[in-house]
Amino acid sequence: MLGSSRTAVTAIVAVLVGIAGLSYVLARAVAPAGAQPAAAQAPKGQAALVEFTTDGKLKQPVGYRKWVFVGSPLTPNDLNDGEASFPEFHAVYIDPESFAHYEKTGEYRDGTVLIKELSSVGSRKSPAGNGYNQGEFTGLEAAIKDSKRFKDEPGNWGYFSFGHKYPLKKEVAPNPTAACNACHDQNAKKTGLVFSQYYPVLRAVAPKSK
Amino acid sequence: MLGSSRTAVTAIVAVLVGIAGLSYVLARAVAPAGAQPAAAQAPKGQAALVEFTTDGKLKQPVGYRKWVFVGSPLTPNDLNDGEASFPEFHAVYIDPESFAHYEKTGEYRDGTVLIKELSSVGSRKSPAGNGYNQGEFTGLEAAIKDSKRFKDEPGNWGYFSFGHKYPLKKEVAPNPTAACNACHDQNAKKTGLVFSQYYPVLRAVAPKSK
Repeated sequence: MLGSSRTAVTAIVAVLVGIAGLSYVLARAVAPAGAQPAAAQAPKGQAALVEFTTDGKLKQPVGYRKWVFVGSPLTPNDLNDGEASFPEFHAVYIDPESFAHYEKTGEYRDGTVLIKELSSVGSRKSPAGNGYNQGEFTGLEAAIKDSKRFKDEPGNWGYFSFGHKYPLKKEVAPNPTAACNACHDQNAKKTGLVFSQYYPVLRAVAPKSK
Repeated sequence: MLGSSRTAVTAIVAVLVGIAGLSYVLARAVAPAGAQPAAAQAPKGQAALVEFTTDGKLKQPVGYRKWVFVGSPLTPNDLNDGEASFPEFHAVYIDPESFAHYEKTGEYRDGTVLIKELSSVGSRKSPAGNGYNQGEFTGLEAAIKDSKRFKDEPGNWGYFSFGHKYPLKKEVAPNPTAACNACHDQNAKKTGLVFSQYYPVLRAVAPKSK
């Protein structure tokens, strides 16, 4: 008796899930034009990860602090003649669906968004010992793999900087190829132009890459 | 005409979502006993965040690398007489639902799980400059707020260490109060026993705490 109830419930659930899925499609179909911001590589059925202006500038990304953390290189100003290229803590994030794809394939899918959020060195001492602790947020960078938008760039990656000092820029054009891409292409070619040698989170899940 | 179609579809969607929700409840109601691992503070309708053995040991957590990144203090061995208390990069994570609660309230809810994953210092130089890059994973710690399980601990936090060298322990008993809790209680009392002064991600979202 319990078995047949379960079967019946399962059948009802299956039908309802199907109907709910259809209703979602319908709801999207009648959404006002422009309700979902257009993006080059938005996963189907999801809001765009990032948004561009009509003239190709990237709007300041949001929500990335809930993405997957990739790693945290640290280039303190005091070890870089007072001004590091990326001052100072780098918190690197990848969008969750691209991480899932990377877990399966070891590849960065078309549409991957990487965010590098920078923060200053704050306290040099804590109850945990001597070292470096994050101070305040100072900067924001993004790298986006998009075979249409950046078809002429090495690896189809576009790189953006919203500045290294608050307030950050609201929207920015891609950096010139020589500014970012050339170095990534030269130093991280084997790992899809991402410096995964510094990111154990990526190395741990990639099926083949190191 | 378009307006009324939209209204009709919206009404249908509302009904279907309601029914789908009910079907989900029903599906759970007939799930076999024990299908969801028991945990002290599993959010309703979700698998447990962490699991304990029957004698109160914490099993090694999984999946936390997809949680919300909190911050990355660094206590290098070479700045701590060759052996830091927490060697060396600390990647701290919080479970997503507890983060959502913290965003709203600035408080750590009962059931909050914080993970500290440790990794070694690898390369001291990269194309980004001089500094510190993550090497390999070396250790894992957890702090769990649970008013039932840790009712006698300051702030109801229990602290666990799976070791600072691989292979990590599979399951561990809570650390003695003096080993962790006393220091957190002494140095981070104003911020719920979490060292949020070192975590801009937390400071940025907390309504009131600093």
